[in-house]
Amino acid sequence: MNMAMKLKPKTYWGGAIFLAVLAGAIPAMAEDTDVAATLVNLAYSIDTFYFLVTGALVMWMAAGFTMLEAGLVRSKNTVEILTKNVGLYSIACIMYMIVGYNIMYGDSLNSVIPGLSFFLGPDNSVDEVLASGGDIYYSNLADFFFQVVFVATAMSIVSGAVAERMKLFSFLLFAVILTGFIYPVQGFWKWGGGFLDGLGFSDFAGSGVVHLCGASAAIAGVLLLGPRKGKYVDGRINAIPGANLPLATLGTLILWLGWFGFNGGSELIISNIDEANAVAIVFVNTNTAAAGGLVAALLLARAWFGKADLTMALNGALAGLVAITAEPLAPSPLVATIIGAIGGLIVVVSIIFLDKAKIDDPVGAISVHGVVGVWGLLAVPLSNPDASFVAQIIGAVVIFGWVFGTSLVVWGIIKATMGIRISEEEEHEGCDISECGLEAYPEFTKD
Amino acid sequence: MNMAMKLKPKTYWGGAIFLAVLAGAIPAMAEDTDVAATLVNLAYSIDTFYFLVTGALVMWMAAGFTMLEAGLVRSKNTVEILTKNVGLYSIACIMYMIVGYNIMYGDSLNSVIPGLSFFLGPDNSVDEVLASGGDIYYSNLADFFFQVVFVATAMSIVSGAVAERMKLFSFLLFAVILTGFIYPVQGFWKWGGGFLDGLGFSDFAGSGVVHLCGASAAIAGVLLLGPRKGKYVDGRINAIPGANLPLATLGTLILWLGWFGFNGGSELIISNIDEANAVAIVFVNTNTAAAGGLVAALLLARAWFGKADLTMALNGALAGLVAITAEPLAPSPLVATIIGAIGGLIVVVSIIFLDKAKIDDPVGAISVHGVVGVWGLLAVPLSNPDASFVAQIIGAVVIFGWVFGTSLVVWGIIKATMGIRISEEEEHEGCDISECGLEAYPEFTKD
Amino acid sequence: MNMAMKLKPKTYWGGAIFLAVLAGAIPAMAEDTDVAATLVNLAYSIDTFYFLVTGALVMWMAAGFTMLEAGLVRSKNTVEILTKNVGLYSIACIMYMIVGYNIMYGDSLNSVIPGLSFFLGPDNSVDEVLASGGDIYYSNLADFFFQVVFVATAMSIVSGAVAERMKLFSFLLFAVILTGFIYPVQGFWKWGGGFLDGLGFSDFAGSGVVHLCGASAAIAGVLLLGPRKGKYVDGRINAIPGANLPLATLGTLILWLGWFGFNGGSELIISNIDEANAVAIVFVNTNTAAAGGLVAALLLARAWFGKADLTMALNGALAGLVAITAEPLAPSPLVATIIGAIGGLIVVVSIIFLDKAKIDDPVGAISVHGVVGVWGLLAVPLSNPDASFVAQIIGAVVIFGWVFGTSLVVWGIIKATMGIRISEEEEHEGCDISECGLEAYPEFTKD
Repeated sequence: MNMAMKLKPKTYWGGAIFLAVLAGAIPAMAEDTDVAATLVNLAYSIDTFYFLVTGALVMWMAAGFTMLEAGLVRSKNTVEILTKNVGLYSIACIMYMIVGYNIMYGDSLNSVIPGLSFFLGPDNSVDEVLASGGDIYYSNLADFFFQVVFVATAMSIVSGAVAERMKLFSFLLFAVILTGFIYPVQGFWKWGGGFLDGLGFSDFAGSGVVHLCGASAAIAGVLLLGPRKGKYVDGRINAIPGANLPLATLGTLILWLGWFGFNGGSELIISNIDEANAVAIVFVNTNTAAAGGLVAALLLARAWFGKADLTMALNGALAGLVAITAEPLAPSPLVATIIGAIGGLIVVVSIIFLDKAKIDDPVGAISVHGVVGVWGLLAVPLSNPDASFVAQIIGAVVIFGWVFGTSLVVWGIIKATMGIRISEEEEHEGCDISECGLEAYPEFTKD
Repeated sequence: MNMAMKLKPKTYWGGAIFLAVLAGAIPAMAEDTDVAATLVNLAYSIDTFYFLVTGALVMWMAAGFTMLEAGLVRSKNTVEILTKNVGLYSIACIMYMIVGYNIMYGDSLNSVIPGLSFFLGPDNSVDEVLASGGDIYYSNLADFFFQVVFVATAMSIVSGAVAERMKLFSFLLFAVILTGFIYPVQGFWKWGGGFLDGLGFSDFAGSGVVHLCGASAAIAGVLLLGPRKGKYVDGRINAIPGANLPLATLGTLILWLGWFGFNGGSELIISNIDEANAVAIVFVNTNTAAAGGLVAALLLARAWFGKADLTMALNGALAGLVAITAEPLAPSPLVATIIGAIGGLIVVVSIIFLDKAKIDDPVGAISVHGVVGVWGLLAVPLSNPDASFVAQIIGAVVIFGWVFGTSLVVWGIIKATMGIRISEEEEHEGCDISECGLEAYPEFTKD
Repeated sequence: MNMAMKLKPKTYWGGAIFLAVLAGAIPAMAEDTDVAATLVNLAYSIDTFYFLVTGALVMWMAAGFTMLEAGLVRSKNTVEILTKNVGLYSIACIMYMIVGYNIMYGDSLNSVIPGLSFFLGPDNSVDEVLASGGDIYYSNLADFFFQVVFVATAMSIVSGAVAERMKLFSFLLFAVILTGFIYPVQGFWKWGGGFLDGLGFSDFAGSGVVHLCGASAAIAGVLLLGPRKGKYVDGRINAIPGANLPLATLGTLILWLGWFGFNGGSELIISNIDEANAVAIVFVNTNTAAAGGLVAALLLARAWFGKADLTMALNGALAGLVAITAEPLAPSPLVATIIGAIGGLIVVVSIIFLDKAKIDDPVGAISVHGVVGVWGLLAVPLSNPDASFVAQIIGAVVIFGWVFGTSLVVWGIIKATMGIRISEEEEHEGCDISECGLEAYPEFTKD
């Protein structure tokens, strides 16, 4: 397997300096081979550890989505959304190990059609690493760990949008297909070295490959599923408040923390001065974009509705995070704040607009990850001169087209066979009892 | 103190390569001593940082147990379980510093009887480290930090099993004894270089030393304590649902995250290629075993009870984690998934069986950590040819025998003196008011 | 900009050994420049990564304060406190980027008056770092990231003390001033190399600069605001219980975890043996001080009130953390436990005393961060012979005087113009509906 294919191509490659140092050092110091080898060992260790730590932060985002969604649905549908979230995370981890990772990063037929193989190969041997002079600079399995938690993130986006009305096992079956096949194929097109990468499409950490991907699958599901009962009645839009806003806030803050791993780890290397600086500005920009998104959404909501709407503020922070994800490295912190703030404004408008269009998305996932994901992709050329609007638009269209199209087919087949929507009675009673046999808060809810 | 005694013996020691490099480098480069010394400095720094980060993740498991247990008890007993959890964590940290760490890793009389000394010594001096040529490769106090959070984990297992009926201060007194003495002695037998280690008993991160230990103490407590009132009435088993399932789910996800530290840090070194690869596969296997356990338990519960039981799924994930803890390094990710999945099946059966046997464990801790802990120990020889079933069985029997026996004595003495069970009236009213004088959710609960 | 000015001066500087090694290595090895350069690269990478990881942990404290405060207020004021917390964090991040960081660490007029400049400069170039021979050893932007989350911590302290009665946007306006100007000026006096640093005032991670600072601003707000309605009636003190104690406990455990970053990162370097040892003991002492504080507060509450008061125990843990923050490096773990335990005793007494003085602080923030912050500062000379009581007292007085005075003026102006207190009717109804238009738990609360 070609290691270069395993890297998310980056526009900024300070690593070359460091690698040159090592590459130069090895032949020059015949008698000092041990020193050069130890340097390669240490650098490999640092970069692998960096992958594992940032990967653990991304795994933590699973808890963020779980709490966010559990806080924004009604108590009668809470156990089911919890079960969906822990279930989809587990399925994503297993399917991506079995087949998804190899589709995304294995040998391919050409730049459009990926290959098909199963399970994970062995890690790099010491001899391979030393012989590469530092070109191979981290553990393959650490890379897998970092990648697998991204797949779970994409699938997590779907569960919120289809909440409170979709059958649990229909959803989990869709998760098998998305995480094993649909996501890896478009991931291959960009990060696996496929044609989107060849076109110059730029997506640092996945505004498109992860967030727009998840949102596109969500839209397909929502269109086939229809809105929740009671949401749109006689031309009126009824607010359906979430049952537990501290949980939703906790979920947002977990996602904020996890995003340092999501974006910060996507630099893929930290073991030299330039790369350490790059990771540092990615952390700073990720943080400040979220802050900008939150403040912008809070002020807009206050101006528009007269209230400091917490859920809009939280979605504003998430929008800031999604917006900066396509390019957290090139902008200055001030520009990153503005990119995030525009994301925060867009998300408020988008949530209102989708509601008027009667597209029922209980947690705002389509707006946060889809609409703002596109904004993030289009914002890349504003700060990164190597990116082009044309390539960004092509990338967005291709990802949306592929994921929406295949998802529509898969959801459609599931709908035709096992069904995707719970019964009216189950929806009225809440799906917790019928699907899971448990209540989330048996002692709290008013009768 | 012999450094080798401070290491958890490992079956896989890639570190030797790296150390050989350094050891070779130092004499060979008389004029380059500064370089060799700097290399030792950097490696020491990386491994110490790795210990501290993974230790912080294990500390975070205290929050996981706290939320899990708080979510699975009734609201009237929630403040008390919160107080028990933060109290036991604090006690574990203090007692292990005062005496436990030294029992476990200090000079011993022989391979059965540990020594007794108090407080922590100074850290390694720079001269010692440099003179060792890299044999001493991390801070003693970082090691202590990593170890102390393991003790707290063991004790956390107990609090769930005895929830809703045990006196708070009787429990905290037991925590003093377990964390200061009972745990360290069996820890010495394995990780401190005692006779279990000598026998070839294999337990990478503590399916036995930590999880079975905690569960054995829990069983002793539960047997002396008896079931909660109303649990088993007239031959019927009454379900007593937890008050807050989002909290329980959050707790599980916290534990899942923390387990990357628990298992990932137990490799004890990351500063070279082989060891970095080892830590990476431990992360991957830990994650995928949990995923396997969750999916298996969810499917079994669905097939058996007709419902996608969230609490079974959560316990399945935890069972997967416990199962892989004895050997997260040797299996391939696929095998790790299967080991975890079997753990997930076992835990569902065990929870049902214990309930039929009228052993009342409100959170399933004995099944998750005890029964599946034994499964984890027995699964080691399946993937690690250096381990033997006989040694694994001896280890499980010795740990259970020691911890169950001593715990029974200690719980018995406490029962005979200050009592261990709250009064019937307190149990009916909930122990929050009587023990802590506070309600967990004063505005929510239905009257 | 002078790099030395960017460092928090430390009493313990093992780094010199390592830097000497490198500095010596570079000229001595004309032909081995590549090796020396790679060593500098690796060390820079380790220290930058260490900053980013510990900074992420401190960011996580924002979630801790949010959950703690959301759990300790009544449900009708929960959305508003959530909004305040996410809002203040965002404002802190933006204001400190725009101007605060430069006030604190930029060129100054003299040791009292800082300079004024805007936005962040570029990071260190590779050439600068290599030319410095390791004197410049981490990314400027990683330093900014670590510092910015400290500012947010200081501001978080305020929100709890003024909870349940202050107008949301008045509070957020104050956050703009505190995080952009008031905090950075006193931060400059100590960590930016100003006159407090010159006087020998010692404050490792901010018992004074962060915690006392936040508490001083809180006191000013509370005095102008007055107590909540119904708190002090006819000479009686009415307890107003928090609505969700599991959330408060979660918040405390999040803070406990985050504090490893807060104190552990404040060593500012980890890339050699001495410094790695230093970071390790800081982790150990931070943990054990919290444990000591929790146990002491729990026992005192039990002895005094007859109940194991969970909220006192949680405040005890936080008090232990605040107490050790001024000097977590010099004490032995045993002494750190005692310093924390004394903090835990002080906080119980202080909370009772402030309540008797009719200073209404719903979450105990003034006691935890202010009173115990002073204890932390005064405890430094007990373990660190380089510190003097006189300098510590001067530091505490200066920080309190500056922050309290300027805050009083700012709160006063806000009060005179837009008002700081919600109306009586809003307070009775809860500020969630009037300020945010949402209920935190719409399905739970009893009517």
